[in-house]
Amino acid sequence: MRVSKEKAAGNREALLRAADRLFRGRGIDGVGVAEIAKEAGLTHGALYAHFPSKEALAAEAFSHGFAGNVARTRALEGDRPSFEDCLGGLLSAQMRDSFETGCPMAASASEVARQGCAVSASFTNAFEQFVEMIEGSLESAIPQARRRRLAIAAVAAEIGAIAASRAIAKTDSALADEVLEAVRETVSAAHMAENARAG
Amino acid sequence: MRVSKEKAAGNREALLRAADRLFRGRGIDGVGVAEIAKEAGLTHGALYAHFPSKEALAAEAFSHGFAGNVARTRALEGDRPSFEDCLGGLLSAQMRDSFETGCPMAASASEVARQGCAVSASFTNAFEQFVEMIEGSLESAIPQARRRRLAIAAVAAEIGAIAASRAIAKTDSALADEVLEAVRETVSAAHMAENARAG
Repeated sequence: MRVSKEKAAGNREALLRAADRLFRGRGIDGVGVAEIAKEAGLTHGALYAHFPSKEALAAEAFSHGFAGNVARTRALEGDRPSFEDCLGGLLSAQMRDSFETGCPMAASASEVARQGCAVSASFTNAFEQFVEMIEGSLESAIPQARRRRLAIAAVAAEIGAIAASRAIAKTDSALADEVLEAVRETVSAAHMAENARAG
Repeated sequence: MRVSKEKAAGNREALLRAADRLFRGRGIDGVGVAEIAKEAGLTHGALYAHFPSKEALAAEAFSHGFAGNVARTRALEGDRPSFEDCLGGLLSAQMRDSFETGCPMAASASEVARQGCAVSASFTNAFEQFVEMIEGSLESAIPQARRRRLAIAAVAAEIGAIAASRAIAKTDSALADEVLEAVRETVSAAHMAENARAG
């Protein structure tokens, strides 16, 4: 059966959405391709017509999910939120409690470390884009190299804070909240120090 | 066949070591119990005689691995390393490149978030112990509540930095190193600000 171009694009989109949602919720190793195809309302064979391997699907699903998060964040915060607003949004209980729509890097960083090159490349690309967004929220009086450093640290610290806060939340919800607050305060203190140095 | 008390303890230890090594290297969802039993030189049945479920094994293996890391760190750094020495060690390329012996929290944070309560409790316990160790490395002139905040942020940021740096390393080794350096600098800047405030 021949599938129209539009239908094929729709199927591909459905597969990426299903994969992104399931991978974020249960991990790349925790979900099989058969289940992703089923969730998208398609057959196993249809999935392989679009993606040669689970890794290829994981890499594209990661980029697709990240692009969706960027678009949602831009719509919510406008084009130019302040650095402190970014920190507040990234290190919120809402971000922690949204497994399937929260930060895809926080949802998968420790796993991506064990995946192949395609997934690593998608992660790296998202990380760089995220750093550029955060860098753009920093005051232009801070020298560019320092803005980049602070943005890299903010993104890495957010990944750890959300992942650790989630890992702790089932056991100690007060400590889980404290993790988010402590990281926000600490990155914010480094930001204030940069601003003071920049005059 | 009756197994002596010593033999049983030895089997249990072998299972914990094998589980810890395999889980850190390939993730909790990436390894089955049969493989862990085999790696420990035991049968599937022997594993279940010690641990009622994979989750129970994962929870104990996590605590066991963390205790081993604490002992190794104490042996290397002595009882009272400085906060900056701790940061340097935690955020080193060596820590990043040691999947099976590096920080067990960085190796598994995003996955633990999806595991059950027993694994979350082990993670939380390790996180609290780690925070206390780091807190003990901070200058006593900094008020206790501020020491705790900074220690929590350092541990969470370390988890994110190591996980993100590993996820990036296959694609861009310069950026992977930059992540470690940026987080070290940023937490260090917050530390210096605390020290300045404490006088």
